[in-house]
Amino acid sequence: MPAAPLRLGLAGLGTVGIGVVKIVQAEADLIAARAGRAVTITAVSARDRTRNRDADLSSYAWEADPVRLARREDIDVLVEVMGGHDGPARAATEAAIASGKDVVTANKALLAHHGQALAVAAEGVGRVIRFEAAVAGGIPAIKALTEGLAGNRIKRVMGVMNGTCNYILTRMQSAGLPYDQVFEEARQLGYLEADPNLDVGGIDAGHKLSLLAAIAFGTQVSFGAVELEGIGSVSIDDIRLAEDMGYRIKLLGIAQMTGRGLEQRMTPCLVPADSPIGQLQGGTNMVVLEGDSVGQIVLRGAGAGMGPTASAVMADVIDLARGFRVPTFGQPAASLALPQAARSATPAPYYLRMTLIDKPGALAKIATCLGEAGISIDQMRQYGHQGANAPVLIVTHKAAPSDIAHATGRFAATGVLVGQPVAIRIEEV
Amino acid sequence: MPAAPLRLGLAGLGTVGIGVVKIVQAEADLIAARAGRAVTITAVSARDRTRNRDADLSSYAWEADPVRLARREDIDVLVEVMGGHDGPARAATEAAIASGKDVVTANKALLAHHGQALAVAAEGVGRVIRFEAAVAGGIPAIKALTEGLAGNRIKRVMGVMNGTCNYILTRMQSAGLPYDQVFEEARQLGYLEADPNLDVGGIDAGHKLSLLAAIAFGTQVSFGAVELEGIGSVSIDDIRLAEDMGYRIKLLGIAQMTGRGLEQRMTPCLVPADSPIGQLQGGTNMVVLEGDSVGQIVLRGAGAGMGPTASAVMADVIDLARGFRVPTFGQPAASLALPQAARSATPAPYYLRMTLIDKPGALAKIATCLGEAGISIDQMRQYGHQGANAPVLIVTHKAAPSDIAHATGRFAATGVLVGQPVAIRIEEV
Repeated sequence: MPAAPLRLGLAGLGTVGIGVVKIVQAEADLIAARAGRAVTITAVSARDRTRNRDADLSSYAWEADPVRLARREDIDVLVEVMGGHDGPARAATEAAIASGKDVVTANKALLAHHGQALAVAAEGVGRVIRFEAAVAGGIPAIKALTEGLAGNRIKRVMGVMNGTCNYILTRMQSAGLPYDQVFEEARQLGYLEADPNLDVGGIDAGHKLSLLAAIAFGTQVSFGAVELEGIGSVSIDDIRLAEDMGYRIKLLGIAQMTGRGLEQRMTPCLVPADSPIGQLQGGTNMVVLEGDSVGQIVLRGAGAGMGPTASAVMADVIDLARGFRVPTFGQPAASLALPQAARSATPAPYYLRMTLIDKPGALAKIATCLGEAGISIDQMRQYGHQGANAPVLIVTHKAAPSDIAHATGRFAATGVLVGQPVAIRIEEV
Repeated sequence: MPAAPLRLGLAGLGTVGIGVVKIVQAEADLIAARAGRAVTITAVSARDRTRNRDADLSSYAWEADPVRLARREDIDVLVEVMGGHDGPARAATEAAIASGKDVVTANKALLAHHGQALAVAAEGVGRVIRFEAAVAGGIPAIKALTEGLAGNRIKRVMGVMNGTCNYILTRMQSAGLPYDQVFEEARQLGYLEADPNLDVGGIDAGHKLSLLAAIAFGTQVSFGAVELEGIGSVSIDDIRLAEDMGYRIKLLGIAQMTGRGLEQRMTPCLVPADSPIGQLQGGTNMVVLEGDSVGQIVLRGAGAGMGPTASAVMADVIDLARGFRVPTFGQPAASLALPQAARSATPAPYYLRMTLIDKPGALAKIATCLGEAGISIDQMRQYGHQGANAPVLIVTHKAAPSDIAHATGRFAATGVLVGQPVAIRIEEV
């Protein structure tokens, strides 16, 4: 007797939801062969039933309320692709778990805010939450980390995980355009979330980083401890000057466990232009996993879009159909430690840009500030004068973030600076 | 009551086997937390018991015969890291399956030759064979393809999967040294198999490609149908001239399903120098997976060595400890089709290098051969004369392999060629 079909309840019929419908309908035989049983959709839910969705939904039951969908007795798995860290997505997920269903979700915000509580609830009833689609779109990054590298003590995870930010930064660089103009382009192309700060403020990418960090280090998700800095302050000048010194600016997330605790940051930083991350163009995502045995594993692919995100949802669904059940964050939720959050203290080289007034001894005063903070200079470039002022660019040797903050804080008192200095961390990737 | 430990029998105590011992011993707590149960080694087997192995094996039972190891009642999984496509590795694997054990193996040769029969046998007794370590070392490529992309119809898989070949080609390029000299260096560094033809003949990489192809296209492993060409004929001249035109030479494997059947080839070819594959240096491996929904996924990491290979073995072991059982090639062995093997017919641009005697009309005669075969020229470069002869380099537009063979076959009859022409396919990657 063939195994019973795995029955999905699909909450959300936007781009990702319709992508899931298309795969389930078009590739039923392929999926059944691989999963060992059929995967079917029983019922769907979305806000507006009347909208034309370019997919035949006529054989599925309709639920106006996703919570009712989640509780239906004739579904095995809730597929939640509505989004939003509270409201219907959270209510439906909680209802699914409470009624003994597994959950597959693309919702990074939900898990970044409520992942621990949801994981505990799911394990309490012997269910799992899977979220491959929540991080780096179609790249099987969660699977690679949770399963492929399960024999490793993870040393560091990194990622460029917001395609919109990478599109904006790449386009600024290639076209030589300022941030505001490219931001407007991105908005018109429909690349931005309704609240653009989720993208350009680094929040969306920070959500993803916090999920990777939880798995990597066996700690409870702690999105609130991610040092977040968006790309709004990245200037075309810095992009140009960085390129001139062999670097690119990326919104890069890094999580690493240090002796002082867990460092998580999602900030613009410089990376070598010829590194895999430096080479990353447009909306493509990259996740880098570093384990004590495996060394560095680099994963690259589309971070968003109907096909890639639906592909990730289906990977989770097929895993469940195959009977694979791994705890939400790779080990029992009760065993996840509350992480000690640490401000970034790992030393790194820094890129410093400032404008000096054209006066003898100006540069010496800046160099003195650095020297007194124990920071040595690796490279220095002074560019042609702009009127009476001289743009100066310094790359330091490795220095602690606090020393850099201390030194640049003292620049103002020298009286030789025009405006504020810019300091951007250079990451070894 | 905690779940019973998963008990391993480890056949093979070379680099990989000792790597597995080290991880099991050093990370017992981490593995137990992630797997939900302890992973232990019950017994080991190797040829020479007296050899000093830099690991404490005193708590493990010793079996001189790996077949006896495989049959022990006190093991759940045979971990086979001996190598060799027949002999003890095959006998032990068959014995393990016959006595109802799962198998984790790093043995690409064994599976390339006997994968179908072994998969059928394993499924007959409800067991599975897992082989993440057999392909691309520490990169979770088998997992990404079998599970992460399970919702995709796979269009193409590609890989640079023999680190020794990539080391040799990279070193030839960077140091400007001829093949024979770098081959000798690699031998002295211990990078070559006892039979170096397994590496430089493309056989090892071809084994790996045939395993990826079986999963990707739902077909029985058919290593015999892989078009194999090693790197022994790659000249430093071609490496230099390719670089000059913006290309690098790589031993690249490609498998794709076409209307005529399954194309599998592992041959030297040109790729753009700035592509991810073109940028790959030294012993690093890369696997590229292309699915209809997900687009292109690129995976990069160490392809060999103690840590990376043991990491892949442990991923399979932990999956089994977690209770995950997927058929060996991603779907039941009985459902795998016998593939129709197709000689490569997919058109591609070609790089042609030849030496012409310095006579008026010589180049015209070559161009005529190409034109008559329906091949048009994209780029042509004639280099400074060497004595009476002129090296000529041609990059064609896309042409069928058979047309290229036909045209270059006719070059000889023109009487203007010195020696043989070189033709190398240019892959879009």
